[in-house]
Amino acid sequence: MTTSTRPPAQSPEELFAEVCGQARRAAVLAAVEALLGWDEQTGLPARAGAYRGEQAAAVAGIVHRLRTDQAHGDRIARLASSPLARSGPPEVVGTISLLARDHTKQARLPARLVEELARTTSEAQQAWRAAREASSWKTFAPWLERVFALKREQAACQLPDRDPYDALLDDYEPDASWPAITARFDRLRGELVPLVQACVAAAERPDDGVLRRPYPVADQRRFVRAVAEKIGFDFTRGRLDTTAHPFCSTIGPDDCRITTRWDERFLPTALYGVLHEAGHGLYEQGLPRDWYGLPAGEAASLGIHESQSRLWENLVGRSPAFWEWCFPVARAAFPQALGDSTAREVQRALMTVTPSFIRVEADEVTYNLHVMLRFDLERALVQGTLAVADLRDAWNERFEHDFGMRPPTDAEGVLQDIHWAAGLVGYFPTYALGNVFAAQLMHAARTQLPGLDRDIAAGRFAPLLDWLRRHVHAHGRLLDSERLVEQATGGPVSEQWLVDSLRQRYAAAHEG
Amino acid sequence: MTTSTRPPAQSPEELFAEVCGQARRAAVLAAVEALLGWDEQTGLPARAGAYRGEQAAAVAGIVHRLRTDQAHGDRIARLASSPLARSGPPEVVGTISLLARDHTKQARLPARLVEELARTTSEAQQAWRAAREASSWKTFAPWLERVFALKREQAACQLPDRDPYDALLDDYEPDASWPAITARFDRLRGELVPLVQACVAAAERPDDGVLRRPYPVADQRRFVRAVAEKIGFDFTRGRLDTTAHPFCSTIGPDDCRITTRWDERFLPTALYGVLHEAGHGLYEQGLPRDWYGLPAGEAASLGIHESQSRLWENLVGRSPAFWEWCFPVARAAFPQALGDSTAREVQRALMTVTPSFIRVEADEVTYNLHVMLRFDLERALVQGTLAVADLRDAWNERFEHDFGMRPPTDAEGVLQDIHWAAGLVGYFPTYALGNVFAAQLMHAARTQLPGLDRDIAAGRFAPLLDWLRRHVHAHGRLLDSERLVEQATGGPVSEQWLVDSLRQRYAAAHEG
Repeated sequence: MTTSTRPPAQSPEELFAEVCGQARRAAVLAAVEALLGWDEQTGLPARAGAYRGEQAAAVAGIVHRLRTDQAHGDRIARLASSPLARSGPPEVVGTISLLARDHTKQARLPARLVEELARTTSEAQQAWRAAREASSWKTFAPWLERVFALKREQAACQLPDRDPYDALLDDYEPDASWPAITARFDRLRGELVPLVQACVAAAERPDDGVLRRPYPVADQRRFVRAVAEKIGFDFTRGRLDTTAHPFCSTIGPDDCRITTRWDERFLPTALYGVLHEAGHGLYEQGLPRDWYGLPAGEAASLGIHESQSRLWENLVGRSPAFWEWCFPVARAAFPQALGDSTAREVQRALMTVTPSFIRVEADEVTYNLHVMLRFDLERALVQGTLAVADLRDAWNERFEHDFGMRPPTDAEGVLQDIHWAAGLVGYFPTYALGNVFAAQLMHAARTQLPGLDRDIAAGRFAPLLDWLRRHVHAHGRLLDSERLVEQATGGPVSEQWLVDSLRQRYAAAHEG
Repeated sequence: MTTSTRPPAQSPEELFAEVCGQARRAAVLAAVEALLGWDEQTGLPARAGAYRGEQAAAVAGIVHRLRTDQAHGDRIARLASSPLARSGPPEVVGTISLLARDHTKQARLPARLVEELARTTSEAQQAWRAAREASSWKTFAPWLERVFALKREQAACQLPDRDPYDALLDDYEPDASWPAITARFDRLRGELVPLVQACVAAAERPDDGVLRRPYPVADQRRFVRAVAEKIGFDFTRGRLDTTAHPFCSTIGPDDCRITTRWDERFLPTALYGVLHEAGHGLYEQGLPRDWYGLPAGEAASLGIHESQSRLWENLVGRSPAFWEWCFPVARAAFPQALGDSTAREVQRALMTVTPSFIRVEADEVTYNLHVMLRFDLERALVQGTLAVADLRDAWNERFEHDFGMRPPTDAEGVLQDIHWAAGLVGYFPTYALGNVFAAQLMHAARTQLPGLDRDIAAGRFAPLLDWLRRHVHAHGRLLDSERLVEQATGGPVSEQWLVDSLRQRYAAAHEG
């Protein structure tokens, strides 16, 4: 027993345990916030929206207070200057560094700005829904003005020394920079535009008629669930539900929920929705469970997250090997639609390339062009080289340049995505970066697993999943995305793998 | 502007607004806690239970701190001694008095006991599930010992001057007393036992064969939803889902969720599950919306809550008038099962009386006997005149006395209900009190609404619902249950209305 009234000095290990405890307590409530969001999308009664907003705000406020708490910050600062932060086990060193970084960013955000962002983006999303329905850019533009002004303020508070767009990007793709992304995207666009033109001009274009037959929804439910389970999604630690826009949400270490939508006359809507979201889900389920609520148990970045969903959706799910396994399963599920077709016919039908106006309905090749357009425009808006008032015209001109056609309405143009209304600025590029990472990772996996296509054709997905678990999932957020991909693949990140993958696969599909 | 550093004295009105604000903030988070519970029942992944427990505990802790907060208590105390507490508008006077009462009870509960109750009842429920499955009383008895010890401690903390059983009862049926309930139940039992015997011995017993035909679940879903909507359940402010045990849970002022289960070969399981839960839901949806989160927006008691569910389930839903409207709807939904039957045949089938072991499957007449048995046993356990070790034998003897048969297994006897494992002691009598209140309220409604049966037979449920809205729902918790029933019906509470109602309706059904 000590006679001093000062508490005995804590060892760095005790301090670490205490700091992690607080982060985990915040994570418990952040997961509750995620449930409120999931429930809002899956089945909130029509008139319950306003009160749900109050519930979400109350929980978000508690989470923010726990994370930016002064005593917590002081403990993190002491920890960051302790020997443990330099010479502890690697995951401890990484955890301390990331917790300190996160705390600094969060604590720099004034509560007033947090609330104003929450309120404005909530109202802006309502305004966006109405504006999109009416295809009325004019009524939405003032809301975008306000959102972008707040986002610029956020950037200046959180990372005042960085370019404002890079500061926002940092929330989704830590340490990424717009000049590097721009250079990568410019190279990518230079290759994609001629590829799209070649596909469109090909003499033997795939016909997707076989996918546009009656596929009863009840049968689709059973089928896509079985596919998700087969690739490794663990339903004892997850669910599958129906929403207007598919997503994946994590409500706890053993509670990862994916959603999809259904189209009775077009099989890919649900199937590729589920393969995509299950890809996200496999990543979430594969993160180190013991580190849940701490950086070592979190995703590396949105780009890496998207690499996992795209890999399963496109590089596995649209491959001939996958359809060798999947076709008999699908034919048993849909005897009427698929009774007279073949695996090759279905797989080829999935390789259709058609420039279109809506990003979320785009094919695998043109998709990246949609993303790059948004990236360039949002960057110019944040940096002030484009005014919100000029955004609609800038969108339409750029679209015409890249796609050779002009959106007939704003709903099919500048008003189609919810992201900016929701304050998600700097988010779009992660979609294309995910495709870049996915192609490079898949190439490495194929090289390191020589029997990969045979395994997939036989319905054995465990070798690929295990490879991803070891090379991607196991690292949590301790490696940034570039280092993670480099370490997994043995070479620096390059968009060339994506170009090669698309060229090779789509050339084959367009040779008849 | 004041130069003093003391804050200016608050007016009672300002104090009232502040106290209500804190109560409403606690209600926002209490509703989040309700969502965690609803989600746990409707679709939590198998392995997500442990983390859900942490989430629920975290939110419950925050709610408890908000409600028992010292400054909040001080403000309530100041308010309770202000003129507003005596001469304000009646709902303000009632609100202050009930908030003060609630705060006192909650603040007297040490945090340690709150946590121990939460932890023990959570584990006891797991133990109960295993014990019921194995029909093993011995493994469950030690858990019941611990639960009842904690509940006695709770009673002594919260209302030290009251009889310990009455103290527990107060959570569900404020101000009720066990001697009064015992006297009421004894009179009721004296009438029910001969009625059950007469029904069982009747020459013309109803045959429920028509209810035991194939009723496809997909058709049942549409049918019961339409029935719930027809009686007035507002699906823009609510939902219907599937769970193992039906319940009604309120997640916010415009978010009342009911659940049911389905039996493909027995229509009443889902239909009467939904009529019962929709009855609860109509009450919740009818409580004064502007007072949500405050006593004037809360249910009067569990007995009153149960009166609403039982009224719609039994007094409306099993009546000839109801089936006059409902039968054509049901026959259209189930042409195969009901094509060759009549409204009268279905309605009579619903009046079967058969003593059985399981409370939740009991008919309307024997149901009350199940409840009274539990009431007498739990009271004796709390008061110490029965030891947990002797509970199983006491149950079996009493059951044989009341029902003329002995449970063949503990799963069909003392282990059948989850309530005691969950710490719900003092809850059971509210089921039978609800039946008593329901019969008296329905008699008054029928007297005051002369066209009631004609309305019901024509599918017009609004007059009855409006009557309940005005006489029951509108009062929130400002009237206690006895006063509420007395004011609505013009006479003191009496079980005689229930006896008369059962006698009259079941005699008619047993006369062929």
